Amino acid sequence: MKKIKVGCIGMGCRGIGMLTTILNMCENVDVSAVCDLYEDRAAEGGKLVEEKTGKKPLVTCCADEVIKMDTIDAILIFSAWESHIDLAVSAMEHGKYVGTEVGGAYTLRDCFKLTEAYERTGVPCMMLENCCYGQTELAVLNMVRKGLFGETVHCSGGYHHDLRDEIAGGIANRHYRLRNYRYRNCENYPTHELGPIAKVLNINRGNRMISLTSTASRARGLETYIKENAEKYPELDGFKFKQGDIVTTVITCADGSTITLTLDTTLPRTYSRGFTIRGTKGSYFEDTDSVFLDDPNADHFNAKKYWGNGDKYREKYNHPLWEKYGDKAKEAGHDGMDYMVLSAFFEAVEKGTNTPIDVYDTASWMSITPLSEDSIANGSIPVAIPDFTGGRWIMRNDENPGNEFWLD
Amino acid sequence: MKKIKVGCIGMGCRGIGMLTTILNMCENVDVSAVCDLYEDRAAEGGKLVEEKTGKKPLVTCCADEVIKMDTIDAILIFSAWESHIDLAVSAMEHGKYVGTEVGGAYTLRDCFKLTEAYERTGVPCMMLENCCYGQTELAVLNMVRKGLFGETVHCSGGYHHDLRDEIAGGIANRHYRLRNYRYRNCENYPTHELGPIAKVLNINRGNRMISLTSTASRARGLETYIKENAEKYPELDGFKFKQGDIVTTVITCADGSTITLTLDTTLPRTYSRGFTIRGTKGSYFEDTDSVFLDDPNADHFNAKKYWGNGDKYREKYNHPLWEKYGDKAKEAGHDGMDYMVLSAFFEAVEKGTNTPIDVYDTASWMSITPLSEDSIANGSIPVAIPDFTGGRWIMRNDENPGNEFWLD
Repeated sequence: MKKIKVGCIGMGCRGIGMLTTILNMCENVDVSAVCDLYEDRAAEGGKLVEEKTGKKPLVTCCADEVIKMDTIDAILIFSAWESHIDLAVSAMEHGKYVGTEVGGAYTLRDCFKLTEAYERTGVPCMMLENCCYGQTELAVLNMVRKGLFGETVHCSGGYHHDLRDEIAGGIANRHYRLRNYRYRNCENYPTHELGPIAKVLNINRGNRMISLTSTASRARGLETYIKENAEKYPELDGFKFKQGDIVTTVITCADGSTITLTLDTTLPRTYSRGFTIRGTKGSYFEDTDSVFLDDPNADHFNAKKYWGNGDKYREKYNHPLWEKYGDKAKEAGHDGMDYMVLSAFFEAVEKGTNTPIDVYDTASWMSITPLSEDSIANGSIPVAIPDFTGGRWIMRNDENPGNEFWLD
Repeated sequence: MKKIKVGCIGMGCRGIGMLTTILNMCENVDVSAVCDLYEDRAAEGGKLVEEKTGKKPLVTCCADEVIKMDTIDAILIFSAWESHIDLAVSAMEHGKYVGTEVGGAYTLRDCFKLTEAYERTGVPCMMLENCCYGQTELAVLNMVRKGLFGETVHCSGGYHHDLRDEIAGGIANRHYRLRNYRYRNCENYPTHELGPIAKVLNINRGNRMISLTSTASRARGLETYIKENAEKYPELDGFKFKQGDIVTTVITCADGSTITLTLDTTLPRTYSRGFTIRGTKGSYFEDTDSVFLDDPNADHFNAKKYWGNGDKYREKYNHPLWEKYGDKAKEAGHDGMDYMVLSAFFEAVEKGTNTPIDVYDTASWMSITPLSEDSIANGSIPVAIPDFTGGRWIMRNDENPGNEFWLD
């Protein structure tokens, strides 16, 4: 079988992690090129490929050079948030499948650039939203599809991840989060929670997101943290941050369902994506890992009784993908999600099909960031979320082309 | 010691419950009158008083008759939501302390009626928000005051209570919720979660609520429930409900803190008030009953480790009121909160002081309901929350007059 040839752009922490997974796990993929604006990072990627495969990839600081290579089939984008859309559009223009790491957009116009490039070129573009492939997320999607929760009327989720150390370390680490937290105030990372919720709610396939409001708390977490760790971050002395500690975004959908997203990355707490699905017949709550099904004899005042019963339901409703590939996926780390999402992307490239997370998903999920920025800047006004499909969401034919890793 | 003489208005389920607690637990209180629009309910209240005390109270369907009694010191309002403010204003005009059961207002103007009546008469008015006196809420307030969580930047809470049976049973039960859910769409019951949060955030005492947005999901829970229990509720056949299943309200405060409130009463789940406090140094989460304190060695990816550690912190930071009265309070039922809040009210009446939850708290907490109704009706626009204190929140002298049950 002919191998898929890919170029990887962005060799920071995430890029190296994903490259490692590809090299270790994806037998049908050849990494033909690695790229980073920083020479040392590009070199590190090149070294990794050579060590694993014995073959020297193109190693470059120029993304254009990779995108223009005749020999590659797909571009994988692991670079800073600001670069995702321009790289994706350019790759589509050059006929290369796009797999782009998660992150929000900076302007609404950029999101349309993505969908318009797809419509012009016909080249698929997939956000590599690994959380859509989490074991819990897929089991819950399975439960929703089987009608366990009745009609879904509300979902919530959050990116609850204490990143103070990563953000404050952004000068040494050359990390894009630092500048984003310093100058912007928005839901800057919506897709880990929104992706799986969008699949549950059939967003862009019979349903769509209509409008949102977004509200940011004051920004005290990072400044407090930096002050208390002043010896560790002398270069941040006196830094002020615009990014509120907690950003709450409420989205309404065409079918009347609502979605609440919380960005929560600069206060102390344990990690969670807060994945919550509320239906007329039952619910799932990630924070207590519990399924609650409608039952007149339920013990309504003893929530603890239901804590942690998710194991039982994950087993019973384990998604076929996890049934088949779960053990292998977990070997790759990151809870197995990276292997799954990469497999989904490479399957589409190999078969020449559309991707299970498509350009309309990518654009609409990324649009939440600039729209939340607008809402916050204007006192939490409701802002419209565009219909990137141009009306096609109502009747859109998005049947599985026969791909195993589709998100049905 | 001279006993406090009170008149109780509203002898529905809640009124009878509170009356029972007063009769059983509050030795310094005489119930001089009971009142309900329904004769049978008024009679039931009267019978209860007579059985417990051997004395016949005034039993009437006319609230005015009670309010005008020269011999009583205070009016307790347990009636339907719609009647709270008119009764409270009238009681203040007649020089009677007001203790009013929780519930939202119907118009913003009504909230001003409350504060203006207080300013005209000098008679205190207290919302009997029992949840401010919950053991967990008071222990967490204690932790906040001791600086355990650093600066508080965000709080959230919800009224997560599956009330489908109570609402659908509203014709037989003559319950006000049924008509409210049928005709209104708002955060109709904000105070169980907002009250304790307002105390944490010093609302109306150095801080105030500035604006809110509110978003309602579609209303599917009740209609699904009624359809599936058609034999139980034949009189509700074909009923439509305006009240969304999940209402998310986001409030901004003068100090930049934010508050998220969730009304969640018509979908299956276990009970919770979702009480969550987020600070720069730590957090409390009711849903997992866990305290998380900033710690570089914390196990960030193992939230389960912290589930249920609240017991330890409740013990260590138990509020003095719970230390002293906890056992007695619990005897009265409703997790001891009713005894506590009634004691707080009667202490103020006895001493002639202001109440720990005052008329400005009552008005501002109740205002969330009509403001959320406005926001929802207008597509989640931000609406201003008035400053009911007329600027006095900044410098307001609200020191404890020496009351044991004050909420410091």
